[in-house]
Amino acid sequence: MRFVTAKKEEKVFVGVVMGDSVLHLREVQKVMTGKVTLPITMIECIEAGDVFLKQAEEIVAWAQEKEMPGCYAIEDVHLMAPIPRPRKNIICVGKNYSDHAAEMGAAPPEHVIFFTKAPTTVVGQYEYVHSYSHLTEELDYEGELAIIIGKKGKSIAAADALSYVFGYTIVNDITARDVQSRHKQFFLGKSFDTFCPMGPVLVHQSALAGQDLHIETKVNGELRQSASTAEMLFSIPQIIATLSQGMTLEPGDIIATGTPAGVGKGFHPPRFLKAGDIIEVTVEGIGTLQNTVK
Amino acid sequence: MRFVTAKKEEKVFVGVVMGDSVLHLREVQKVMTGKVTLPITMIECIEAGDVFLKQAEEIVAWAQEKEMPGCYAIEDVHLMAPIPRPRKNIICVGKNYSDHAAEMGAAPPEHVIFFTKAPTTVVGQYEYVHSYSHLTEELDYEGELAIIIGKKGKSIAAADALSYVFGYTIVNDITARDVQSRHKQFFLGKSFDTFCPMGPVLVHQSALAGQDLHIETKVNGELRQSASTAEMLFSIPQIIATLSQGMTLEPGDIIATGTPAGVGKGFHPPRFLKAGDIIEVTVEGIGTLQNTVK
Repeated sequence: MRFVTAKKEEKVFVGVVMGDSVLHLREVQKVMTGKVTLPITMIECIEAGDVFLKQAEEIVAWAQEKEMPGCYAIEDVHLMAPIPRPRKNIICVGKNYSDHAAEMGAAPPEHVIFFTKAPTTVVGQYEYVHSYSHLTEELDYEGELAIIIGKKGKSIAAADALSYVFGYTIVNDITARDVQSRHKQFFLGKSFDTFCPMGPVLVHQSALAGQDLHIETKVNGELRQSASTAEMLFSIPQIIATLSQGMTLEPGDIIATGTPAGVGKGFHPPRFLKAGDIIEVTVEGIGTLQNTVK
Repeated sequence: MRFVTAKKEEKVFVGVVMGDSVLHLREVQKVMTGKVTLPITMIECIEAGDVFLKQAEEIVAWAQEKEMPGCYAIEDVHLMAPIPRPRKNIICVGKNYSDHAAEMGAAPPEHVIFFTKAPTTVVGQYEYVHSYSHLTEELDYEGELAIIIGKKGKSIAAADALSYVFGYTIVNDITARDVQSRHKQFFLGKSFDTFCPMGPVLVHQSALAGQDLHIETKVNGELRQSASTAEMLFSIPQIIATLSQGMTLEPGDIIATGTPAGVGKGFHPPRFLKAGDIIEVTVEGIGTLQNTVK
């Protein structure tokens, strides 16, 4: 299933994308059963685990038979980030593709590099990324596959790690390169409001394996990044195992798995973002996350 | 006022410390007015702003006249961290005292260094810090003054910054030094569960100015860190101004302002923590945060 958090007439709901339509799960459940038991937010749905998935499957099957009540044309709803307000910072992996490490002038890291972005950075499909031209002259993009954690876990073995994944989405890890390098640790230059476009959909892991997907980023239609998630230096299981050694992972945690070569700073001369630029990050099996710089 | 989040018979409440007693604000409000309008959690109280403060003041004044109903002896409650579950990562300032930068082999930073700790790291007064002896051989302490943000703000001028501070508490920024350096960015080595003791109280800014307080850390009674918060390289207003340039600060945000010289790694040879060690961080006007390594 392909889940979205969508907004219709200022009401936010969790939906399932079916072709060109979005099924409002709670609305259909009400028509189908006369009562609503599904949680309201995506994080709560993820927390509900298999109970939620089973209900969602029943609702989708019923709606398909009944000519789709509680359904909206996808262009009539506003797609928010699948998790519009994470409960903790977004965890990001740095330099997880060797070509990207090289273009940043670094050797491939021996150990996974983790940093975070503030939850206030998140925006959804088609929302603006602010240029902050008074604060940075080096605004950059980083297209990435993101993992959404499905259940609580600590000291997770790499062999078990994929059973902790709820699904996958796309993240654009927008970065003010000059702020990032001036302040040494990455947090500040990666945490301005609107610096984390996310979406458009959250694909459940039963429908997608994350480790061998084509990923590409275009700026104004020009291809900048093109790679396979198979090229990650540290695989998804390794990332989860390392991260959870001493830290409990929780449902709804978001882990951006690193960006391949082709970021603006990697060009000679660098090609940073400016107002009006349209960034599209496409991950095979998920879709295209598009945002415009304002 | 000196606020706490406390637990009594598995019920968590926001209280005010008065001498050796903790006043259960909602319980007293019920006796006083017949109804309860105060929020339940500390973050919600902080969000309520002046309305909360005025109510709390009235409740405290009333209780003092009425021989303190809804009051517990402080030793009869469990003091949790003032904000037991932050809504985002704890923001920390790195190398904000020149002597500490020097003992870490670094020059004083030209720009503020920010990194974060996961919300799952937080523990309260007297709770254990786990040693993770299978993951680290370099467990270290960092006593710090922490700022709690009181209202939402962005692009906050240094001159206005203190009006965004709700109050102050103590944080012990526990760090696995080997993990910190192995993984380059600080997040992972600072984010193991129990690595952020916080408390014991949250002192409202009307009762305390943060910038000239004595701070000290003892391990097993031996003085290790002793400094004044006046020695910070980047002052509280500068920290808030820099942080909020592009990122919205929100009520309940926690900013640990950096640690002075005297951490375990600064000694020759280093003096890291081991199971059984008792760490006490004292900040003038706040109190002493005590935790034992397990």
